[in-house]
Amino acid sequence: MPDHGLETSAFLAALRGDTPSRRPLWIMRQAGRYLPEYRAVRERVTFHDLCTQPELACEVTLQPLRRYDLDAGIIFSDILTPLAPMGAEFDFTHGSPKLASPLRDESEIKRLRVVEPAEELGFVAEAIKMVRSERPDIPLIGFAGAPLTLAAYLVEGGGSSDFRHFKTLLYTRPDLAEWLLDTLASQVIKHLTMQIEAGCSAVQIFDSWASILHTKDYRRFAAPPIKKILDGLAHLGVPRIVFSKGGAGNLPILRELGAECLSLDWTCDFADVAAQAPGQVLQGNLDPIALFGDRDELVRRAQAVCRAGDKAAGHVFNLGHGILPPTDPDALALLIDTVHAHSPEA
Amino acid sequence: MPDHGLETSAFLAALRGDTPSRRPLWIMRQAGRYLPEYRAVRERVTFHDLCTQPELACEVTLQPLRRYDLDAGIIFSDILTPLAPMGAEFDFTHGSPKLASPLRDESEIKRLRVVEPAEELGFVAEAIKMVRSERPDIPLIGFAGAPLTLAAYLVEGGGSSDFRHFKTLLYTRPDLAEWLLDTLASQVIKHLTMQIEAGCSAVQIFDSWASILHTKDYRRFAAPPIKKILDGLAHLGVPRIVFSKGGAGNLPILRELGAECLSLDWTCDFADVAAQAPGQVLQGNLDPIALFGDRDELVRRAQAVCRAGDKAAGHVFNLGHGILPPTDPDALALLIDTVHAHSPEA
Repeated sequence: MPDHGLETSAFLAALRGDTPSRRPLWIMRQAGRYLPEYRAVRERVTFHDLCTQPELACEVTLQPLRRYDLDAGIIFSDILTPLAPMGAEFDFTHGSPKLASPLRDESEIKRLRVVEPAEELGFVAEAIKMVRSERPDIPLIGFAGAPLTLAAYLVEGGGSSDFRHFKTLLYTRPDLAEWLLDTLASQVIKHLTMQIEAGCSAVQIFDSWASILHTKDYRRFAAPPIKKILDGLAHLGVPRIVFSKGGAGNLPILRELGAECLSLDWTCDFADVAAQAPGQVLQGNLDPIALFGDRDELVRRAQAVCRAGDKAAGHVFNLGHGILPPTDPDALALLIDTVHAHSPEA
Repeated sequence: MPDHGLETSAFLAALRGDTPSRRPLWIMRQAGRYLPEYRAVRERVTFHDLCTQPELACEVTLQPLRRYDLDAGIIFSDILTPLAPMGAEFDFTHGSPKLASPLRDESEIKRLRVVEPAEELGFVAEAIKMVRSERPDIPLIGFAGAPLTLAAYLVEGGGSSDFRHFKTLLYTRPDLAEWLLDTLASQVIKHLTMQIEAGCSAVQIFDSWASILHTKDYRRFAAPPIKKILDGLAHLGVPRIVFSKGGAGNLPILRELGAECLSLDWTCDFADVAAQAPGQVLQGNLDPIALFGDRDELVRRAQAVCRAGDKAAGHVFNLGHGILPPTDPDALALLIDTVHAHSPEA
């Protein structure tokens, strides 16, 4: 699909390292529970329906784009969605996702199969095409989970405070852990390729649990499957963003992966990161909780992130993590105005 | 109390930056649920009893010292114990600690009062004296929570996934947050002074939630009360350890505090830290989950931590976080033998 209407996109210009017409901004989980219009839809249908029915996914993807002057959309889906046809369907009915039978041993893990997303996950492509058709003027981001994060979900069977089962696998059967991570990378390549072919102009890989490993283990286990994904998408020519929560300590490793943009959480100072990673386009990194503070303080903090972002080779403004459900939608409106009004220092 | 029998302590020598007779080792939460003898006591009494009855606290403190060849003991207590007489008693009966009325506004926060621990927390001093009398040959560590971690517990009323209430306080009433953090620092000074006067030969400040703030906020809010505590203890002449979970990104700030030793979690490579912080004695940092892996892998990983620790000005071996309840006690025995047998490279 040609990028009709996207020639002047500030988001895509910043990702290319060009000078954008304004500082681009989008918000992780911008289609989410903080919006009353999202909650209205969600009252009628399940989370699973939202992810798997293209009309619904399209509708909630469009909601924040109607309300706010955002520089990108992100298709509504879940990082665990592509795991269901692989053989591991998570249950979302009780809040946090749960896998009835976590994958702990070789026979359970090796049962996973790489599937053709066009056959099994076509609803994601459908939703993307619908959004692109409605809003050809706004770039749409496709996404997937990083293999480390997906593998941890599969082995733990959900979230965890200590990742004991996943790390025990890593420390007892590193070969099997590597097979799992590599298999997930293969599936993610197919899933993101489908999303790009359906019309996404950029992709983001979410490594929500980048902070659970020793830096040497991150290099050995977590980085190669991300590198494989980035390499497997390179021929498609769309910018690739890697979001790493708690991963600022792994910056030297992240830089080597070859992503056009690194998205980091709210704990690090982008001025420091830019000094360590010259030439790197950065995305982030306002604390989502800043949206709960005084409005003056919100503006000050947003401007501080902009000033720090100005030190980088390019800056896409975002939060350092997803926007929280109790957030006041008006606070986000103020944030967006503040960021777009902020001019880089001379 | 004179340090009778402690002149040759490897633990204290390493903390002083001297060459110890062997690589010292102790384990965070070494008196804990992984020990059957601890569970046997705990079956009869509540957690609150364990913390507040000197005989019980002494007994469980001694348990790991009987079973293992450890280089230090740590008095059994809880970081939330000193908050009860201040006016905020946590309930431990349902697993994770809960405060019935979290401190959210000024009137609730300003009600906290600094108390004399000899009057209100004398049971901790009693327990320390009992342990010292039983085991004068082993240095005993006193401890307290860092003000950031304690303040977050008080405002959230327990643990949290996003620390929304505490950070909203920080972003709306920084003056009140600073009052709270400073008040907690005053109480911690008194609490640790009492522990040292009762016989502790070293103290550790636990900053379990060091990772929740932007590095500039950590410098502004979290570091000054730790500095105040360290300064307030300096005249007592015992080594001071600061444990920072997830805080490796704040290393330049932590170094300035003046602690004799920094204890870091399992995610960072001590060889890298030592390069950034020459002259700094380090404590840690094996992943607690390594104790669940293959025994060969446990030995390899322990030796890797020792080799990395050899790059520092001094190394006290420990885990990067507390030992987990499902840990096999025999795995810890193997770890202790491995660490004591490991010789620094020539």
